[in-house]
Amino acid sequence: MLPAVELDLSLSPGDLTARLIDIESVSGSEGPLADAIEDALGECDHLTLTRDGNALVARTDLGRPQRVVLAGHIDTVPIAGNVPSRVDQGVLYGCGAADMKSGVAVQLKLAAEVAAPVVDVTYVWYDCEEIESERNGLLRLSRNDPASLAADFAILLEPTGGVVEGGCQGTLRAEIRADGERAHSARAWMGRNAIHEAAEILAILQKYQAREPEVDGLRFREGLNAVGIRGGVAGNVIPDECVVTVNYRFAPDRSADEAADHVRQVFAARPVTITDAVGGARPGLGSPAAASFVAAMGGTPRAKLGWTDVARFDTLGVPAVNFGPGDPSLAHSRGEHVPLAAVAECESRMRAWLQGSVS
Amino acid sequence: MLPAVELDLSLSPGDLTARLIDIESVSGSEGPLADAIEDALGECDHLTLTRDGNALVARTDLGRPQRVVLAGHIDTVPIAGNVPSRVDQGVLYGCGAADMKSGVAVQLKLAAEVAAPVVDVTYVWYDCEEIESERNGLLRLSRNDPASLAADFAILLEPTGGVVEGGCQGTLRAEIRADGERAHSARAWMGRNAIHEAAEILAILQKYQAREPEVDGLRFREGLNAVGIRGGVAGNVIPDECVVTVNYRFAPDRSADEAADHVRQVFAARPVTITDAVGGARPGLGSPAAASFVAAMGGTPRAKLGWTDVARFDTLGVPAVNFGPGDPSLAHSRGEHVPLAAVAECESRMRAWLQGSVS
Repeated sequence: MLPAVELDLSLSPGDLTARLIDIESVSGSEGPLADAIEDALGECDHLTLTRDGNALVARTDLGRPQRVVLAGHIDTVPIAGNVPSRVDQGVLYGCGAADMKSGVAVQLKLAAEVAAPVVDVTYVWYDCEEIESERNGLLRLSRNDPASLAADFAILLEPTGGVVEGGCQGTLRAEIRADGERAHSARAWMGRNAIHEAAEILAILQKYQAREPEVDGLRFREGLNAVGIRGGVAGNVIPDECVVTVNYRFAPDRSADEAADHVRQVFAARPVTITDAVGGARPGLGSPAAASFVAAMGGTPRAKLGWTDVARFDTLGVPAVNFGPGDPSLAHSRGEHVPLAAVAECESRMRAWLQGSVS
Repeated sequence: MLPAVELDLSLSPGDLTARLIDIESVSGSEGPLADAIEDALGECDHLTLTRDGNALVARTDLGRPQRVVLAGHIDTVPIAGNVPSRVDQGVLYGCGAADMKSGVAVQLKLAAEVAAPVVDVTYVWYDCEEIESERNGLLRLSRNDPASLAADFAILLEPTGGVVEGGCQGTLRAEIRADGERAHSARAWMGRNAIHEAAEILAILQKYQAREPEVDGLRFREGLNAVGIRGGVAGNVIPDECVVTVNYRFAPDRSADEAADHVRQVFAARPVTITDAVGGARPGLGSPAAASFVAAMGGTPRAKLGWTDVARFDTLGVPAVNFGPGDPSLAHSRGEHVPLAAVAECESRMRAWLQGSVS
């Protein structure tokens, strides 16, 4: 058994982030970090702590009229020569610096030190976000104990560059098939070339005008794109099948079923097979807790275009936004980093909001 | 060691074909059949016999002003429950019935029995025609002893349904690449989709007008077709590459180099990689031996559209045609068959021509 690692939650948000980076927690190996968090928070009498595998839930129970979830995943993509962390000119480098140990550090500071927030808070740290959906710790919690995630509003501390990103778009994949008839390629006119036929599928994609709907005050931007194509039997055969895989990213005013209907209509002349589809999440910025959060964080909220775990809160009926330090485009990169000042800024803004001390 | 098998060349052409089918000779396992042919022809004093691996060359040397090659491969594709042979209502069924043990039987009958043809004849039986080109027995002979294949005219006894098919078309494969820029599919406008871009390659193929040139009096019919397409990185990534593999079947008035230039011109806007190219063969029907052969066989000669080993004779400067019993579209099929009468008809026409007894 490895010696337990210790977390000192009195460190600054930036220093705590560095410490978190140094406790490796690649998806599936979050045990030591989850243990360290459990130990550190065990000393906080104002929190009720429960654990499900390597996911942890810590709650205040102050009888406040509103409850807010602050959630973050503790796993990272595989290490890429970027552990241990290092600081250079005020910038912290290391695996998970942006995605999302800086957000986890903010959660831990707030959980440990804001003993009497103006809203009740449910802090959630979960495992296996960076791998296949079925192993996702937040999904597991939502199945094992959905009541533990009940709230009026949820904030996922994924990196957003310190701007509130509301909701998220859904994503759907489908296979569109072009059919033909095989023939020897020396006598092509005896058959019908399915790959040539697929030109019409690609032409539809080229001409497709994506929607940019406004949902709950935020502008989303859809996209319908080929992400794969395959066809061919042998080097001397006119192929009888060509399959184009498309990915439809759709705004949260459409359900996954409506998105599937739309794709079927776009390719009405072809066999369409929906291979997977998951709905997005509405921004839900109209709720009082969300409105006060957006006001407190400043800036103009924008729509989240990628799919994130906020959609799981949407499924539970909890409006959710993404907000955290770090540049999302650096996620999963070897040179992943976050300015120490951005972590401190995020922490102090959220602390002020939870303490009701926002001007 | 297996007991040697015996071939009785006094059998009728059809019965001899059945006997040849029953001596299995899948590519790479032609030894027993080559041995049997060598033994049977060893008794013919009018022939000079040489062997190279499982290829055999038998020559008359009568000092005739013209020399003709009669060539055929002795291997077959793998057995598919179609050996031993069987006869039903005058039709012979079995592996190689059409492609091309009936042609081999005709060669053997003529070699054994036409001791004084009006032209000198070089009979060639070779191995490994049905597999990768590098193992082809005719290619090996043409490298080891090109003089053994020298002639004024060559006839390849591949199945043509008893019609003279002149020359053959060349074949070239090339990869045409569409490039793009990767991006996350939730923000497709940050990249450029290579699969969508490939629509233009497919549109060129759809609109392509294939040539139908007349070469040495025969009408060829070209074709430019996609035989494969691939593209895609992951289900959430805008792909940066899509590759279309095309197969160009070209008439023998173009060399392989000219064909490559043509394909590069057709896709001038794209990177083109020629992956393999082999020229065809001109029909060469203008030579005296060819003209007399066509006249003797009757019917209207047509162009051979698929690539065949006649191209190897073309490389050696020997005009060549395809002529043999059996329906070429049955080649390689489980139900491969040939009418016994067609084998006899082919044998008697060719015998008459070799004996100079054509009216």
